[in-house]
Amino acid sequence: MPVIDLNSDLGESFGAWTMGMDAEVMTHISSSNVACGWHAGDAEVMVKTVRAAKAKGIAVGAHPGYPDLLGFGRRDMACTADEIYAYTLYQIGALKSICESEGLRLQHVKPHGAMYNQAAKDQKLAGAIVKAVRDAGGEIILLGLADSAFEKACAELGAPFAPEAFADRGYMPDGSLVPRSQPGAFIHDPDEAAARMVRLVKEGVIKTPDGQTLKLKARSICMHGDSPEAVKMAKTVRAAMEKNGIAVKNLREALFK
Amino acid sequence: MPVIDLNSDLGESFGAWTMGMDAEVMTHISSSNVACGWHAGDAEVMVKTVRAAKAKGIAVGAHPGYPDLLGFGRRDMACTADEIYAYTLYQIGALKSICESEGLRLQHVKPHGAMYNQAAKDQKLAGAIVKAVRDAGGEIILLGLADSAFEKACAELGAPFAPEAFADRGYMPDGSLVPRSQPGAFIHDPDEAAARMVRLVKEGVIKTPDGQTLKLKARSICMHGDSPEAVKMAKTVRAAMEKNGIAVKNLREALFK
Amino acid sequence: MPVIDLNSDLGESFGAWTMGMDAEVMTHISSSNVACGWHAGDAEVMVKTVRAAKAKGIAVGAHPGYPDLLGFGRRDMACTADEIYAYTLYQIGALKSICESEGLRLQHVKPHGAMYNQAAKDQKLAGAIVKAVRDAGGEIILLGLADSAFEKACAELGAPFAPEAFADRGYMPDGSLVPRSQPGAFIHDPDEAAARMVRLVKEGVIKTPDGQTLKLKARSICMHGDSPEAVKMAKTVRAAMEKNGIAVKNLREALFK
Amino acid sequence: MPVIDLNSDLGESFGAWTMGMDAEVMTHISSSNVACGWHAGDAEVMVKTVRAAKAKGIAVGAHPGYPDLLGFGRRDMACTADEIYAYTLYQIGALKSICESEGLRLQHVKPHGAMYNQAAKDQKLAGAIVKAVRDAGGEIILLGLADSAFEKACAELGAPFAPEAFADRGYMPDGSLVPRSQPGAFIHDPDEAAARMVRLVKEGVIKTPDGQTLKLKARSICMHGDSPEAVKMAKTVRAAMEKNGIAVKNLREALFK
Repeated sequence: MPVIDLNSDLGESFGAWTMGMDAEVMTHISSSNVACGWHAGDAEVMVKTVRAAKAKGIAVGAHPGYPDLLGFGRRDMACTADEIYAYTLYQIGALKSICESEGLRLQHVKPHGAMYNQAAKDQKLAGAIVKAVRDAGGEIILLGLADSAFEKACAELGAPFAPEAFADRGYMPDGSLVPRSQPGAFIHDPDEAAARMVRLVKEGVIKTPDGQTLKLKARSICMHGDSPEAVKMAKTVRAAMEKNGIAVKNLREALFK
Repeated sequence: MPVIDLNSDLGESFGAWTMGMDAEVMTHISSSNVACGWHAGDAEVMVKTVRAAKAKGIAVGAHPGYPDLLGFGRRDMACTADEIYAYTLYQIGALKSICESEGLRLQHVKPHGAMYNQAAKDQKLAGAIVKAVRDAGGEIILLGLADSAFEKACAELGAPFAPEAFADRGYMPDGSLVPRSQPGAFIHDPDEAAARMVRLVKEGVIKTPDGQTLKLKARSICMHGDSPEAVKMAKTVRAAMEKNGIAVKNLREALFK
Repeated sequence: MPVIDLNSDLGESFGAWTMGMDAEVMTHISSSNVACGWHAGDAEVMVKTVRAAKAKGIAVGAHPGYPDLLGFGRRDMACTADEIYAYTLYQIGALKSICESEGLRLQHVKPHGAMYNQAAKDQKLAGAIVKAVRDAGGEIILLGLADSAFEKACAELGAPFAPEAFADRGYMPDGSLVPRSQPGAFIHDPDEAAARMVRLVKEGVIKTPDGQTLKLKARSICMHGDSPEAVKMAKTVRAAMEKNGIAVKNLREALFK
Repeated sequence: MPVIDLNSDLGESFGAWTMGMDAEVMTHISSSNVACGWHAGDAEVMVKTVRAAKAKGIAVGAHPGYPDLLGFGRRDMACTADEIYAYTLYQIGALKSICESEGLRLQHVKPHGAMYNQAAKDQKLAGAIVKAVRDAGGEIILLGLADSAFEKACAELGAPFAPEAFADRGYMPDGSLVPRSQPGAFIHDPDEAAARMVRLVKEGVIKTPDGQTLKLKARSICMHGDSPEAVKMAKTVRAAMEKNGIAVKNLREALFK
């Protein structure tokens, strides 16, 4: 029976500000990427999010980001590898202790926003992140882009890696995402997204905008939970998996079954 | 053979700003209280400080503080117990993972500044802090004021507690510190401070400004490292301990020997 | 013809987080209290809010707060008068230049949250705030609680003061607000709130929960805009003013007409 | 009589952390670039720095930076022009009101660190900064790199511009600074620096490492004050100016005499 993990970003509220439809999207996913207080989230939100994930049986991963609360960690920053190592280890540790205080094991780390995008293409940054993941102990899985600097760094450092696909994004023939400015960048129809993801899990392929069939690795599918439309897509993808005989399991189960 | 721990705050630099004479004071202490990035310190400084402490054989403790970098965590803030629990657990976790990445075990937690002072007198805040220390796992020791709300909370929650004395402060007959505005608040002479501390460790008593002899518990002595005078006092106290047959050991050894 | 100003807090979004129904509430008020980036708001939000207020013909005031973004400036903090002076002047200046860049004159300053509440009862803090308001130049009006330390500080320093009343709050016979924990603390019915405010403007009195008639000064009425219910109350109060022959004018016009 | 301005960064302390030898370097300069609380400085430090500058008769300029306290504003960040406009206007406004509260006129704006370096080469960012300077009113001068995007933006927007030279840096034949990794990047000898600057002011030329004579515009010379060596160089340059019949005047006087 094919197996897949479904992941979504959670815990992005901060102080008096609310963001995301966490309660809704939690019913459709198996793994959560929890913000760690640098680009979003705060210590109290983290505690509440971990408790909610535990109550729903969802695995918890850390979602570390740049020290840029004002820019939501979405702006490229020129940090050194030593800085990124320390930033990542710090954020992992904060969430890891919160997980352990609730009797949970921190499952994975998925870098956020610009940290994700810059490190996916920069072997030094990816290496710093994976080193922090490994040094934090506990066989934490790095969740990230397939065939990226992350995957290579995990192979070099002997850390578990899981590639993810994006339910709502189009792919180029070389496996990269269709740039946001080009046609085919986004899949808006939940049924289309679900059908694409079912085929990806069952056959390991996905259609590109120009009609080619691309081979793509994915142990987890990233979905959003920040709007009613996003939640609907998450719900549709989840239902399609189950209807098509695909088991939805958290990343550790999906990876090491 | 009598045993005592000597502790000092370290890792209080932030970004481009340097604070403290860490390298010097490290040669005289057995335990360090490392700032966790909220009132002082940052992720990179924490990594460097833990590595330096490891190299010198000094035990590492967390020094969590209020979210008040601008005020160095020294200003009273009206936080709820839930907030304080989350803030403390977050900061402990961040430093704990950094310690573990270096093969060290986080030894203790000593709250900083206004968090220390407010919680020492407020059972709800002390309870929140001690609960975070306990929930972080690993039998972390709470280092704080003797006969305070910390001690009571540790007794209630079954967490190890270690009382500390201040080498450079005077004590009132009731065991509280002489207010900073009153005569006798500070001991400036290193030799006098050292003699007081030796007597405290050997006999468990200390002289008050009005000549009384006060019984005082102490498993650790707090010293400063932010000025040449402070470092000189730390050196003098350390030397006096060794000259008087008192073993200087880190808190875990001093407590559980 | 009686005149009143209607004020509301605006510009409380921060970075990627949205807060408040600014566009809706703006249609019902004459003066805005714009957050200045310390407890809420950010530089870009401030620019956008000032432009929106200008487009609607609404006067702009500064809404400075404590350096506590995580706590939304609602937590008491022990700041010195020198700190509060500098914090207030800094935040006023930031918004003042943004106003002037749009050809607007900064009309007033209304401290936010815990800064408002602590200073209203603390003559030193109120004096520091009013001194900053005065030193910023341009005859900026201090908008605050009647018969408070603010009013006294304005009288002493020769700064214009405008007392405000709260549309949704009950008043004790001594003029203070009914504590949030007591019956009568909140007025939930928009029509009741509107009727109370009309009487206040026309007769200068308001009913207390125990049936007494309290004399109360008010040159502005504070309303909320953070929920559909709050916006409905704002709309109802505004309509009642106009229906009862009360001119709604901004604070400068209301004060110096 | 030739005239030159001498500028230095001041007010870079933050909270409990001290940086720079402000009191010493102030005796040698005519204009100060005061940090505005984003990359360094804080509201209280700004007030104290402006008062000190006033007492010494030194002109005050704003030194706005990126929202990156942890990185001291030295890390490249991918901000939009709208963000940079708002960030710059906000920081200018804060310092402008502090100046005006002391009866001073804000003289100039000199962007800091990565903001300076990125905008000097990016016409959109430079345009956003100069627009903020212009919109703040009061004919504030933009102080920056000669022949840069700043100069072009000032010309386009009709804002006063002043080019600066660096006392301790070498210049390439094209007028750019010798990269920090190359020989000749830094001038360490105070006397050599002073001689170069005297020739620059008197003849408008400077020697490059390969012996060429470069034409260079400068209305101000940037010096440092963060170390005893830097202060010595500042002192030496100042003395050389006076000895060689060059009047040291603040930027407004130097520019509009």
